[in-house]
Amino acid sequence: MTQTTPQFSPFLTRMRARAPLVQNITNFVAMNVQANVMLAAGASPAMAHALEEGAEFAGFAGALTVNIGTFDDSWSQAMLSAVRGANAAGTPWVLDPVACGATQARRDLSARLLALAPAVIRGNASEILALSGTATRGKGADSADEVDAAMAGATTLARRSGAVVAVTGPTDFITDGTAGYWVDNGSAMMPRVTALGCSLTGIIGAFIAQETDRLRATTAALTYYACAGEQAAQNAAGPGSFAVAFIDALYTMTAAQMDQAARVRKL
Amino acid sequence: MTQTTPQFSPFLTRMRARAPLVQNITNFVAMNVQANVMLAAGASPAMAHALEEGAEFAGFAGALTVNIGTFDDSWSQAMLSAVRGANAAGTPWVLDPVACGATQARRDLSARLLALAPAVIRGNASEILALSGTATRGKGADSADEVDAAMAGATTLARRSGAVVAVTGPTDFITDGTAGYWVDNGSAMMPRVTALGCSLTGIIGAFIAQETDRLRATTAALTYYACAGEQAAQNAAGPGSFAVAFIDALYTMTAAQMDQAARVRKL
Amino acid sequence: MTQTTPQFSPFLTRMRARAPLVQNITNFVAMNVQANVMLAAGASPAMAHALEEGAEFAGFAGALTVNIGTFDDSWSQAMLSAVRGANAAGTPWVLDPVACGATQARRDLSARLLALAPAVIRGNASEILALSGTATRGKGADSADEVDAAMAGATTLARRSGAVVAVTGPTDFITDGTAGYWVDNGSAMMPRVTALGCSLTGIIGAFIAQETDRLRATTAALTYYACAGEQAAQNAAGPGSFAVAFIDALYTMTAAQMDQAARVRKL
Repeated sequence: MTQTTPQFSPFLTRMRARAPLVQNITNFVAMNVQANVMLAAGASPAMAHALEEGAEFAGFAGALTVNIGTFDDSWSQAMLSAVRGANAAGTPWVLDPVACGATQARRDLSARLLALAPAVIRGNASEILALSGTATRGKGADSADEVDAAMAGATTLARRSGAVVAVTGPTDFITDGTAGYWVDNGSAMMPRVTALGCSLTGIIGAFIAQETDRLRATTAALTYYACAGEQAAQNAAGPGSFAVAFIDALYTMTAAQMDQAARVRKL
Repeated sequence: MTQTTPQFSPFLTRMRARAPLVQNITNFVAMNVQANVMLAAGASPAMAHALEEGAEFAGFAGALTVNIGTFDDSWSQAMLSAVRGANAAGTPWVLDPVACGATQARRDLSARLLALAPAVIRGNASEILALSGTATRGKGADSADEVDAAMAGATTLARRSGAVVAVTGPTDFITDGTAGYWVDNGSAMMPRVTALGCSLTGIIGAFIAQETDRLRATTAALTYYACAGEQAAQNAAGPGSFAVAFIDALYTMTAAQMDQAARVRKL
Repeated sequence: MTQTTPQFSPFLTRMRARAPLVQNITNFVAMNVQANVMLAAGASPAMAHALEEGAEFAGFAGALTVNIGTFDDSWSQAMLSAVRGANAAGTPWVLDPVACGATQARRDLSARLLALAPAVIRGNASEILALSGTATRGKGADSADEVDAAMAGATTLARRSGAVVAVTGPTDFITDGTAGYWVDNGSAMMPRVTALGCSLTGIIGAFIAQETDRLRATTAALTYYACAGEQAAQNAAGPGSFAVAFIDALYTMTAAQMDQAARVRKL
C-alpha cells in the first residue's frame, strides 16, 4: 500500500477554516440528516431549492450539490436553473444521481444534468454504471453492483464528462479518468442509515469549495467520512446509535486522527 | 389468552430474507424516520412519489404505501396514479389516512383512495372511525379515541372495503372483518416520537410483500414493531433516547426474541 | 440581575396542561425535528400546509407558525392563505423569516407576511436586522450578526409591526417594542444541530396559544428551550448525542428545574 494518507487531512483543515456556504438541492429524506452532517463537519449548509432563488443563491455559494432522489417536474426545473446559475458564476457543483437507472424520468433528468458539466459525480456502483451507460441490476437507491464492477464505468464516465467520479460502497473508488484512489475505510452500518450517501455528497461540496485539485479534495472528503463511520461503529448497538455516534465522530475527528485511521491506496 | 404468538415470527424471517423493495409515498415529517425504520428492519425502502414515475415504480415494487399526511393537490394526483399502477401490476398497497377527519380536503382524498382497494389500512382510532363514517373527536394526527371504541368501525370498514384494517394505539387491533387479533405490546413512549405510526405503515408494506395471508402478515408487523418499542423503552430517558434505542431494537430483534416477548390475542 | 425568573415556569405548566394543537408550515429540513421537539415538550404539532386546507386548519388550531426556509411559489400561496385564515379566526401566528435577507424572493415573501400582523417574530440577528430594514452581513440561515447589534432593529421592528420580536443567539433578546427580556441560558452546541431555531418557533406557538401576555409567554418559551439545551450539553460528546439529550431534556424538565436553571434579565 502506498503511504499517501497524510496528504488528505489538510483538505479537512482548510474546509473547517473556511466553513463554506454550500447550497444543496437534495431530497426530502436527506434534508435533515445532510444538514446535520454538514454542520457537524464544520460547513454551512443551505437547503435552497426554489426556482425563484436557486440561480441567484448559486452565485454566492461556495459550491452547489444536486440530488435527484425525490425529484418531480418542478424540482427538475429548479435543479437545472440552479446549475446554470452555478455555471455562470463559476461555482462548482456536485451531482448525486439517486437511482438514476430505475425509471425513464430519472434517466432523462440525469442525462440533462450530466450535460451541464458537474465538477464531481457521486453515486453507488449501480448508479455510476447506469449513468455511464453500462447495464445494471439496481432498481432502488440501494446498490446491487459491486464497486469493483463499476471501476471501468467510472473511468469512462469521468473521461466523457470531465468530472471527478466517486463510487461509494464497501470500498470507495475516486477517479478523474486518469488518476484515481481507493478508500478502504468505512462501516457496514453506513448503508443501514438512510441518506448517508446523499449527505456525503454535501460533504464533497464543502471539500471542493475553493479547491483546484478536485480529485484529491473529493478523496479527502470520502476518507474523512469513512473514517468517521469506522469510529462510530466501534460502540454502536445498531443503526440508531450508529447514526448518533457518526455525527459526533464527524464533529470531533481531528486531522491527526484522520491521518492515523485513513487507508487510502493510489490507483 | 390463546397462545398464538409463535405463528408470527416466520413473517419477520421471510421479510428479512426477501428484503423487499417497498415504494413509499409518505409525508415530509415521516420520510427520514420511515426509511430508517425500514432499513433497520431489513427492508429496502424507496421514497418515490413523482407523478412522472410513481406508476412505473409501483409495477416492480414488492408493495406500495400511501400516507396522506402532508398531501396537497399535486401529491394527491401522484398518489392516485401510483395506486392505479400498483393495482394494474398486482402490487399490494397500504393506506395511511393521516388525520383524515380533520378537513374536507382530507375526507375527499381518503374517500378516493379507499375506493381503489387498499390491501391494508392502518390508522389510529380517530382515523379509522372517520374513514368508516363513524363520528370522531380527533382533529390532528394524534388520536382522541380509544382503540376499543374503534373496533366496530374497523370491522365495518374491513367488510366494506375488503382490506385488512389495523387500528394502532395502546393496544392494537387488526381485522379482516371476520377474524382478528389484539396486540398488547408497545410503549407509551411511541406516540411521543413523531411519525412512528407512519413508519409502521412502511413496515406493514414490507411484511405483506409476497404474502397471501395479509391478516396474519399485518399482525406480525404490528407485533414485531410493538415488541421493539417495548424493548427500547426499558432504558430510555425520554423520547430522544427512545427513538435511538427503537431503531437499534428493530435491527437486533431476532425471531426468537419476538416470539418470547409477543402478547397477541385472537379475537 | 433582577430576580424575575420564577414568573415564567407557569407558562410551561399551562402549555403542558393544554397540549395545544399547533399548525406548522415549516421547511423540509425542520419538519421532523420540529414535530419531535414539540411532542417532547407536550404540545400537539400538525404539519398541515396544503393550500386546500391551511386556512380551514388555522381556524381550529391554537396557534399557527410560518417558516419560509424552503419556500417556493406554491408554498408562499399556502402560507399567505393559512395566515389569512388564522387572522380571520383570531388564531395567533408566529413568523420565522429564515434567511430573509439572502435573496430577492425571500425579501418579498417576508415583507408580504410581515404585513399580515404576526403575533411573534423569531429570527437570528441577521434575519431580524434584514426584516427591520437594517443592513446585514448574513447570507444563509446562520447568523453573521450579534444579538446585541440586533437589539435596536428588534425594537424598531416590534414597534412598527405590533409583534413581539425574539432574537435568538448566544443570548436571546425578546421585546414588544417597550419592555423586554434577555435570556442568558443556552449552549454553543445548539446552532450545530440543524433546525433547532425553527423548532423553537414551534415551541413559541405552543406557549402563546390561549395566553394574552405574549411578551412573557415568548420569553418563557425561550427560557425553557435554552435551559433544556444547557442541560443536554452537560453529557454530549458532539451534536449527535446533544440532539438526543436535548429531546430528552425537553421531555423531562419540570417547572421547578426550569426556575432553578433560568437566567433571565429584564430590560
